[in-house]
Amino acid sequence: MPKLTNLELTALADSFPYPNSPDHKIIASSLYQFTSHDLKANLGYLLPFVVDALRDLNDLFVVSDADQRVSIRPEFDTVEKRSKMMNDLALKWRIDNKFRILEGWRSELYPIYYPSSEIYFTIERSASAIFGFVTYGVHMTAYVAASDSKPLRIWVPRRSRTKATYPSMLDNTVAGGIGYPYGVFDTLIKECGEEAGFDPDLIKEKARSVGNVSYYYIRTSSAGGESGFLQPEVQYCYDLEVTEDTPPPRPVDGEAEDFYLWDLERVKEELAVGNYKPNTALVTLDFLVRHGVITPENEPNYLEITSRMHRHLEHPLR
Amino acid sequence: MPKLTNLELTALADSFPYPNSPDHKIIASSLYQFTSHDLKANLGYLLPFVVDALRDLNDLFVVSDADQRVSIRPEFDTVEKRSKMMNDLALKWRIDNKFRILEGWRSELYPIYYPSSEIYFTIERSASAIFGFVTYGVHMTAYVAASDSKPLRIWVPRRSRTKATYPSMLDNTVAGGIGYPYGVFDTLIKECGEEAGFDPDLIKEKARSVGNVSYYYIRTSSAGGESGFLQPEVQYCYDLEVTEDTPPPRPVDGEAEDFYLWDLERVKEELAVGNYKPNTALVTLDFLVRHGVITPENEPNYLEITSRMHRHLEHPLR
Repeated sequence: MPKLTNLELTALADSFPYPNSPDHKIIASSLYQFTSHDLKANLGYLLPFVVDALRDLNDLFVVSDADQRVSIRPEFDTVEKRSKMMNDLALKWRIDNKFRILEGWRSELYPIYYPSSEIYFTIERSASAIFGFVTYGVHMTAYVAASDSKPLRIWVPRRSRTKATYPSMLDNTVAGGIGYPYGVFDTLIKECGEEAGFDPDLIKEKARSVGNVSYYYIRTSSAGGESGFLQPEVQYCYDLEVTEDTPPPRPVDGEAEDFYLWDLERVKEELAVGNYKPNTALVTLDFLVRHGVITPENEPNYLEITSRMHRHLEHPLR
Repeated sequence: MPKLTNLELTALADSFPYPNSPDHKIIASSLYQFTSHDLKANLGYLLPFVVDALRDLNDLFVVSDADQRVSIRPEFDTVEKRSKMMNDLALKWRIDNKFRILEGWRSELYPIYYPSSEIYFTIERSASAIFGFVTYGVHMTAYVAASDSKPLRIWVPRRSRTKATYPSMLDNTVAGGIGYPYGVFDTLIKECGEEAGFDPDLIKEKARSVGNVSYYYIRTSSAGGESGFLQPEVQYCYDLEVTEDTPPPRPVDGEAEDFYLWDLERVKEELAVGNYKPNTALVTLDFLVRHGVITPENEPNYLEITSRMHRHLEHPLR
């Protein structure tokens, strides 16, 4: 298999074409916007078979074929009403086996924002991709800095072979979705304990907020459930510098099968052969950019990569 | 004066509205694209008075009002022909006092790329904004890391009061445009010596490539010359960690009047009162994001800021 370039790796995570591109016109022509009850905000893009599923629910939604738009009915005018309506619907679909993606039911709520920074409603995590909603997570890269005798090395977990999504693929040291009502850093501390056994005090003292990646993913079969759902995502990124003496990460909750301490040559090799989960590859590329490993001199597609991993998403955001 | 938020600072540098926004439609409706001789690439946006200046040059350009497009005539089919034609025109305009921006003539060539990564032609630096071409620079932030007794501090220069552009404003430790035929890191080393007296060996050993910012600027009067030119820009960013013992930066070529070693409280204060040059403010915000000072917890517009400072520019790039 030919090796993947860093731009190809980026495009695996940021797979929805940009507006203005010919591909975008073709794909977007079949999509409907899912809008707020006041019609002002596009909360996500719907595939045609989802529009069909919403079409008969006249008491919940208004479908406008002329505008390629499905809106929440105006009477759902509070967070509570919208949250109840959306979750009752997701639960009904789950019982009816309407969408395979709901087999991955998480019993975890994700907040949807509108206006930006304000929660508009919450919805069961596994249902959010059906509507194309923006979702949020935290990713942390733990690394041992270079010393005189050894190069910089990263702690890389392999996902459990029994996980429903991306089994056995490589991941960032710690990664998890931000569920309601948790904050960004709270989620990081929680995931660091659950997935890798890191001491909360270590994280509070040493984990450094270093930016975020954002991208527009089109789900594939490896993500579980139906292919094709639009999934705009934001991952808040943290670096954790550890030493040889820091207790190493260890599998706790079974999400990770094992952790490896790899130098960057090995990390780049594993990236290039496609062994990383797409969005964790993107976070790793961001790490390599920030740490001066991928540079304007050695990466011909540098600017395309750095802008696409910080994609401006056309929806209200957290 | 009310203090500027970080999003307002971002918007001072990234001031051209995004496609899909109502403001973009209004502004873009009066703009023409300046395209390659094969009509395939939009190299920049032209203001109406620039289109008028090009309209009579039938032997050089084709103006299509129906498409709101000005293209280079197909007979300019080599880099050499295009470079000569564009520079002869710029020189004629300078002699005729056609555009005030050419009073800042630099005798320095900027490369314009098409396809991406390939030089399509070069043009006198001060003329590039007339055509809305993407330009490139390097910015470096030199800092003394936090110690037990002192917080992290940044070396901040004040621009000379006699500079034509942004006199007396604050800047990044070292900043400069990437002229033809210099590379990114070569330019950094050159500017570090010329502007701040940094030893080339120090830069080669310690300067770390940490990413880039990109943004779409609408020139204001402080930039010198006419207001309103569209100026998409990329700045490659470097961090330089120095110690109390490192010879401090010092004014060499008169670009900087003085250098201050300021803690981040002072830096944030100077940002908020608008004392930074707009694009150097953006680079400083990126530094603060990467160093965990601006975080998802303390910055309500975090995602808007991080995506806008990595704007996807709709033109072929370096």
